[in-house]
Parts: sequence; structure tokens; C-alpha cells
Amino acid sequence: MTELILALDVLDRKSAIAIAEASAPHVDAIKIGYPLVLAAGLGIARDLGGLGLPLIADFKVADIPNTNRLICEQVFAAGFDAIIAHGFTGSDAARACVAAAHETGGACYIVAEMSHPGATEFFHGGTAERLAELAVTSRADGIIAPATRPERIAVLRGIIGSRTIYSPGVGAQGGDPAVVARLVDGVIVGRSIYEAPDPAAEAERYAARIRQ
Amino acid sequence: MTELILALDVLDRKSAIAIAEASAPHVDAIKIGYPLVLAAGLGIARDLGGLGLPLIADFKVADIPNTNRLICEQVFAAGFDAIIAHGFTGSDAARACVAAAHETGGACYIVAEMSHPGATEFFHGGTAERLAELAVTSRADGIIAPATRPERIAVLRGIIGSRTIYSPGVGAQGGDPAVVARLVDGVIVGRSIYEAPDPAAEAERYAARIRQ
Repeated sequence: MTELILALDVLDRKSAIAIAEASAPHVDAIKIGYPLVLAAGLGIARDLGGLGLPLIADFKVADIPNTNRLICEQVFAAGFDAIIAHGFTGSDAARACVAAAHETGGACYIVAEMSHPGATEFFHGGTAERLAELAVTSRADGIIAPATRPERIAVLRGIIGSRTIYSPGVGAQGGDPAVVARLVDGVIVGRSIYEAPDPAAEAERYAARIRQ
Repeated sequence: MTELILALDVLDRKSAIAIAEASAPHVDAIKIGYPLVLAAGLGIARDLGGLGLPLIADFKVADIPNTNRLICEQVFAAGFDAIIAHGFTGSDAARACVAAAHETGGACYIVAEMSHPGATEFFHGGTAERLAELAVTSRADGIIAPATRPERIAVLRGIIGSRTIYSPGVGAQGGDPAVVARLVDGVIVGRSIYEAPDPAAEAERYAARIRQ
């Protein structure tokens, strides 16, 4: 069944914990990016650890192999279960992330294509397909593909087979959760849930639409 | 005259401050990446602020426009003077970083091509050239280009004109500082200085080779 992943992109620790706790019964994992980690520290993983949900560090790691490894090691030591890395930096850089993840029993997902309008400039024209192939050859656990372009998800699914696809871009960015849910393993929802007056109720509504 | 930029990629606050203070008389700016910030927090900018050197956040920002802005706003609020962002995420994503930088009087540099071996996989074949063009049209303050491939720096210089080029890849990665110094505005040196028994003496040696 398709998972619902909460993108917890708020900027302070207290709100993050409150929204995560309220939404926890309805979501399958929590994705945390740099805006929250820069504000609250990597210790946010420990703060949320008691919820028993997988924590995904969406750092879109995009440096040289040595630096990628240093970033990933800190992420997994802090208690995260998975990391999202870019692949356009090349297979050596991506493999550094996959290796650091797998050494601790964690997972690594490679961005094949992003969800915003400007993503078409460099990810289209064959690049996203090559990034999906890189995810396979680098033994990554799956890819990130855009909920804003379901037809692109279908193309990338053909390349990666049964590996995991997580998909952002639903809600604020315009992707339809019911359409995307049939194509991917996890739908990522951020602003629509954490900016809602009642995040728990909104998470429950999204879960129902995604899992139907 | 070509600048020497110290890449302060150590993992703890105390070492970072000690190495920065020792090297400060010989360097023109300090570049700080995620490995140190994840360990020591964005407050490291305040810790190093007394040195009077520009502080460059090398976060290789590579997310959607909204997230890029949130990251950059925190970086400049913490006291950094410049940020390094990726451009392959598209012009809207790059512009979000440039705008956040310029609103606070800071600078934004776009990665045109990286220095490690795997960078050739996706940055070559015309992509680095397009990224350099994107840096110009996005009104970025300059680009990052690889000291490991001086011939590529020359090509990218032809595209960006008099805008700034900062170049990593000297020392541990194999680039020759004397060769690169003639092509760029700033040479970035990391491991060769901060892993040296006497970082200050090594910084002084690099400065002499770069500025000759």
C-alpha cells in the first residue's frame, strides 16, 4: 500500500514536534530537510525518535564524495533512517551516500527528477532517465520523482523496476495525490498538512486518499 | 590578486576556531560546509566573525525554490557573507538563492562544474557551459569551477567574463595552485592546510604560491 510521508518543513523544534506527534497516527514516515535541521540541529531526530516512524533526511546531498560521506555519517549517527541524495554529481558521489547509508542499515534515495517548474531545464532531455539508471547501478534503495509530472514517474518506473519511488509535489505544488498514489511507493506531503489549522485531520484525509 | 580561501572542513567547533585563527593572517576568506555546520551549528559564523574575513557557506544548495530560500535566509541571518548554490536545479531555484543573498548584501556563487572524477558524468557535454550561462542570467556573483581541470576553467571564463571564479580541487584533489591562480579569482584549499601539522605555515606557503 502506498505510504504517506510527512515533509516536516517547519522552522522551529517545538512546532515540528507538535505537528509530528499529532500527525503520527496517520503517516508512515517523516521527511526532514535543512531548513528545520539548521534551526533545530540534527538532534531533532532524537526528539522525534519516540514516534517509531522512519526519519528521512532530505538533504539532497550534492557535494564531492568525501564531503558526501561526512554529511551522511553525521545524519545516520544522529538517528535518521534514510537520506536523499542527488545523483547528477556523479556515480562516485552517489555511491559515497549509498555506502554510508548501508553501513548503518539505512537507506539512500537518489533524486531522479525534481517537482518544481525549473526542474525541466536540466533534468529533462534524458538526464532524469540517466539518474534513474545511476540509482540502479549505485544500488540505491530507490528514487525521488515528481508528483507534478505523473507521466514522468511512469517513464522512470520503467527504468528502476520494483525499487522504491517517493514522490513530492502534491498539494501546494499541484500534484494530485490520488493519481500519484497509483504510481509510487510513497507520496510526500508538506505544506498542505503542516500549514493546515488541524494537521492531524489533514494527514488523515491525505492518508485516506492515498491508500484508497 | 588571486585570493586564498580556506575550506574549513573539520568536524568540531574547537578545531575549526583554532585552525581559522592560526590561518587568518594568510587567507582572504573562509569557506564552511555542511559537515562542520551539522556538528557545530550555524553559530560557527558568529564564532569566526571576529576574524574579519568573509565567510562563505558552501552548502551547494540544491532544492526547490521555496526550500532554497528558507536555507539561504538562515545562512545570511547567521552572519555568513556568501552562499554557494547549484544551478542544475534550474533558474528559478538558483534565483531564489541569488535573491536571498542580495537582499542582505551577500553574494551567491553557482556551481558550474565540480572538481571530483564523477563530475564529468553529468557536468560535461555542455551542461557546465549552460550552468555558467545560468549564473550570468540569474545575476549570480560568480561561479565555482574545478582546479582539477584548468582547461575547463578557461572555457567557463569565456562565458562569465569578469564575474568571480572560485576554484576548489587544489592539493588533496590534485590541482596545481600556481596554474589555477592565473585563471581564477580565488583558489580554495582545504585538507592540505587544515590537516597540516602547522596550518598557519601551510596557509602562508599556499598564499605565496597563489599570489606570486
